[in-house]
Amino acid sequence: MSPVPLRNEKAAEASVRSVTILGATGSIGDSTMDLIRAAPERYKVEALTANSNVEGIVKLAKEFNARFVAVADESKGAELRAALAGTGIETGAGESAVTEAAARPADWVMAAVSGAAGLKPALAAVDRGATVALANKECLVCAGDFFMDRAAKAGACILPADSEHNALFQALASGSRDELTRVIITASGGPFRTWKAEDIEQATLAQALKHPNWSMGQKITIDSASMMNKGLEVIEASYLFALSSDEIDVLVHPQSIIHGMVEFTDMSVVAQLGSPDMRTPIAHCLGWPNRISKGRAAPLDLAKIGSLTFEAPDYARFPGLKLAYDALRTGSGATTVYNAANEIAVAAFIAGKIRFGAIARLVEATMNGWVRAGNLAPLSSADDAISVDHKARKLAASLLPEIAANAS
Amino acid sequence: MSPVPLRNEKAAEASVRSVTILGATGSIGDSTMDLIRAAPERYKVEALTANSNVEGIVKLAKEFNARFVAVADESKGAELRAALAGTGIETGAGESAVTEAAARPADWVMAAVSGAAGLKPALAAVDRGATVALANKECLVCAGDFFMDRAAKAGACILPADSEHNALFQALASGSRDELTRVIITASGGPFRTWKAEDIEQATLAQALKHPNWSMGQKITIDSASMMNKGLEVIEASYLFALSSDEIDVLVHPQSIIHGMVEFTDMSVVAQLGSPDMRTPIAHCLGWPNRISKGRAAPLDLAKIGSLTFEAPDYARFPGLKLAYDALRTGSGATTVYNAANEIAVAAFIAGKIRFGAIARLVEATMNGWVRAGNLAPLSSADDAISVDHKARKLAASLLPEIAANAS
Repeated sequence: MSPVPLRNEKAAEASVRSVTILGATGSIGDSTMDLIRAAPERYKVEALTANSNVEGIVKLAKEFNARFVAVADESKGAELRAALAGTGIETGAGESAVTEAAARPADWVMAAVSGAAGLKPALAAVDRGATVALANKECLVCAGDFFMDRAAKAGACILPADSEHNALFQALASGSRDELTRVIITASGGPFRTWKAEDIEQATLAQALKHPNWSMGQKITIDSASMMNKGLEVIEASYLFALSSDEIDVLVHPQSIIHGMVEFTDMSVVAQLGSPDMRTPIAHCLGWPNRISKGRAAPLDLAKIGSLTFEAPDYARFPGLKLAYDALRTGSGATTVYNAANEIAVAAFIAGKIRFGAIARLVEATMNGWVRAGNLAPLSSADDAISVDHKARKLAASLLPEIAANAS
Repeated sequence: MSPVPLRNEKAAEASVRSVTILGATGSIGDSTMDLIRAAPERYKVEALTANSNVEGIVKLAKEFNARFVAVADESKGAELRAALAGTGIETGAGESAVTEAAARPADWVMAAVSGAAGLKPALAAVDRGATVALANKECLVCAGDFFMDRAAKAGACILPADSEHNALFQALASGSRDELTRVIITASGGPFRTWKAEDIEQATLAQALKHPNWSMGQKITIDSASMMNKGLEVIEASYLFALSSDEIDVLVHPQSIIHGMVEFTDMSVVAQLGSPDMRTPIAHCLGWPNRISKGRAAPLDLAKIGSLTFEAPDYARFPGLKLAYDALRTGSGATTVYNAANEIAVAAFIAGKIRFGAIARLVEATMNGWVRAGNLAPLSSADDAISVDHKARKLAASLLPEIAANAS
């Protein structure tokens, strides 16, 4: 053994790992399937799910010879069944079928169903003590009050699949939780990083969809532009690693190369870096506790990149980020309300009903209204979280006309 | 326990750790004593050594109530003995006394004696299976052929105290040795980073001593200017972590904030960052396997720093760096010759006998002469290493007049 104490021994590896991908046809699902495709001898696909993309999920089901396939959209059940007739692949439709997929025995589950719909399936995987790569934000943002406790009770292993949280997870290997002084989550700053407040207020949908580094879905791209996405990530980090809001800093880093950093008591900062490619954090989750070497992203070439820059976040121009800290400090469902109000606000912005700048104002008004109405209460089940989510959406929708009418 | 798998448990901690500092009055010694001073209840000083600074070592010996104090300079023995008379502190003088200090029972030894003189004391600590924070380059550069093997056999634990190697050590916690694809050591580039080759050739001593980031001794500062220091670090990294020369990259990074990085098979890069302050890597060694929180450096503020830049190293302008890779590939004592020739060359430069640009030419000529004379042979003891060091110095000195006479 080397006298320099290294983690020289690999953890024992099952020769074949059974995997389930919830949300297999989305952007995270695509990257996950790419990695599995690169080493087909190492994985056996137990279940795949999609929202409503029958064509996509059928193609994947056949390629990977999945045992079970589900679509969340119940109306697509017959189409799915017909497309897979004669293959021996079982099918299901409706949200309960997605949860069934998660409950089936697989060593490793990618939880990448987006939105509140992802909560029950993720809990189904957690409750049976699986290793769950978590890409769904709502499990933590809406249900953080009990999600991690429930995982701990079931002996589940939660692996953060988001690039920022995965970076923190990797960096934390260099120390222990009680040796951590703070974590730093980086933010690209989005397309409006250098814009004046009054220009951000008036930004169009097309402008909000131009993300400088990452290619992602529409909702998350808009959340990046408003920095609401970073707010959601601050909340996630808090629940994932049991951190107080004071222990989480956001640092604007336009190149998105350093994804996250952990500062330890001795002032060493350990960081994870990589090209902005979701395959890297997903590969870390897929291989964990080992590292895989196939299907990987391009190597990082810092000499070619030349320069990494950093700025403090501007809460005045990006008030949505500050609201996340407020929600975290408030607790008792406030982060669920923050997320629900933002969903309504983004939909209203996409529909042309409110200005870009009104997104944060609607979130703030909804949070304030919720607290004033005495609705704060700890959440202890998925139904609790979903109920708060629904009520908060209603409240946000009811406040929408007033917010829409009042320009900044 | 958290479902996110963290190193939550601290390693069991002895309430008081006995420590010995070899080279206590130098720059590394200063930083080490600062850290011990900040938490006096946690350390008991077994032994302290200095080269010839009696006043400095006596002050430290009294402050920390050391049990044994040694100076390498035998002629200072009486002065040391007199200064500590009546304190009950044992004293010794001469190189063997420094080795005796290292051999005394201390849990943790800082090996910061500079030059080839540091080899025997470090081996004495290694041979008794101590935890050795290694700040002396020669143990690896001149004796790498056997140093790590000997540490492994004795069950010693080697902790890299150099900022770059300590960074690699911290980053390696995120994976295992066989999951590593390469390590990246950063280099400030020194004062001549942007200079033309012909200006570097003519650089004066005063110019070579203006290091942009680190405050260090004269020899190492000149080595930074020639990038010979980075060459020595490449060699050290190779022996420390059993890496081939192909697995070690150097990246010029003028701000010296990212100290080292490890690239893993899945293309995650894990890095250690910190203010350019030697207390940070030393604190990591002093606390290991835990992290300490007292006497630490200032927190890193990347938003304030603003920008980190990176360039590929230029072997044409800094040929000394390339020679290190050559020496590493040659093996069998070649790295010892590289170091010895550089010591002679730097001394000649300081004495005004050769131009700055001639440093690398003398090293190259010495390495070539050594190989041509059929002197390459594996080293297996400190005496082997010291003998090669002496012979190589003689060869370098004999080549000096010719190198001095021929301008580039």
